[in-house]
Amino acid sequence: MTTILQGKVKTLFETDDPNVVLIQYEDKVTAGNGRSVDFPEDKGEICCKISEYLFKEMESRGIRTHYISTVPRAIMCCKRVEIIPVEVVVRNIAAGSIVRQTTLEEGTVLSEPLVEYFLKDDAKDDPLLTYDRVRLMGIDPQPMREGAILINNILQEIFNGIGLTLVDFKLEFGYDANKNILLADELSPDGMRLWKEGKSFDKDLFRKGQGNIVDAYKYILEQLNVR
Amino acid sequence: MTTILQGKVKTLFETDDPNVVLIQYEDKVTAGNGRSVDFPEDKGEICCKISEYLFKEMESRGIRTHYISTVPRAIMCCKRVEIIPVEVVVRNIAAGSIVRQTTLEEGTVLSEPLVEYFLKDDAKDDPLLTYDRVRLMGIDPQPMREGAILINNILQEIFNGIGLTLVDFKLEFGYDANKNILLADELSPDGMRLWKEGKSFDKDLFRKGQGNIVDAYKYILEQLNVR
Repeated sequence: MTTILQGKVKTLFETDDPNVVLIQYEDKVTAGNGRSVDFPEDKGEICCKISEYLFKEMESRGIRTHYISTVPRAIMCCKRVEIIPVEVVVRNIAAGSIVRQTTLEEGTVLSEPLVEYFLKDDAKDDPLLTYDRVRLMGIDPQPMREGAILINNILQEIFNGIGLTLVDFKLEFGYDANKNILLADELSPDGMRLWKEGKSFDKDLFRKGQGNIVDAYKYILEQLNVR
Repeated sequence: MTTILQGKVKTLFETDDPNVVLIQYEDKVTAGNGRSVDFPEDKGEICCKISEYLFKEMESRGIRTHYISTVPRAIMCCKRVEIIPVEVVVRNIAAGSIVRQTTLEEGTVLSEPLVEYFLKDDAKDDPLLTYDRVRLMGIDPQPMREGAILINNILQEIFNGIGLTLVDFKLEFGYDANKNILLADELSPDGMRLWKEGKSFDKDLFRKGQGNIVDAYKYILEQLNVR
């Protein structure tokens, strides 16, 4: 298989169909823009399965995604998209970078979901963008914003249903060959904050050295499957 | 005199009147959040005089400022305000941090002035804030935004009149004892980018080691005085 892109924890491969790619989820976790790395067993497969579950939920509720099917083990077959170089973050509760870069305290419940944009550029350390900066870069933030709010509603319902609080999450969107905007990348606890009774069930366990992410992710997958 | 605050290039002193402060402009310039420092002779007085000129222009056009009078040498008598911990930047042309943190190229003329907000916190390196982040911090950005756009119109007219292009500038606002919002801090080339025929007439001369800022600032003051 020909590699199109080697991401930090996923690899993108070409297929015979120019409109279809394979995304391999690796047994790897990184934090701090790649400054910390670990290789936990089963992590790729669990993230792939959680993503599969959530992409199917999105599709069933009318959100268009790049998801086509899952190939054992830890490989997702997806529509090929041109990724928009802007990461969209939705926050329901203040945590992470917004706490470091404002006077807000961690845990502050936001009166309404906050949609934010970050430049997808590791060399620049993914800087915060304002809505106007996104527009000035020639990218329309509005369809991403509208999609992100709908996706937040769905994810909140799903995670509330299994006793987890959705603090925030990151999305990536892309355009397919027909210029449709699709939800892309992955939908796993690697790109979310999920809290339960004061504990994290997400990548913060790795970022802060507070526990085993694979156990937490397995717990989420089990809960989703019995939902 | 009792010092209230020692800033990077200005010092704030109490007076007998609790509503009046003295601001001393020092012969000092810093860049990179204080990482580079120099002490150019006459710099304080020139910045004080340019600020005096521009504050008077603002007042004459209905913009309320903290300016009361100037005391030789390089001391400004001002209304005491509680500074809002948000720096407001107006951009007419892309330069500086917006070029480093987006895909915009330096020199890109913006179709309309861009008003941006930065947290006034040296320890956090003055991070960019979105409009929503300012609001969530309990600060209303709207009066600052409206003032900044009016001030931009006035400054553009003044600088165009002496052959300089106003690229961008930074403002600080504060509330006086009666809760009036006033333009505060200074209005000098230390907090602006001014271009003429491809050359900088501002602190970028120091930031980039491209020339003597005092000569450039003196040129601006002379031009303003014969305007």
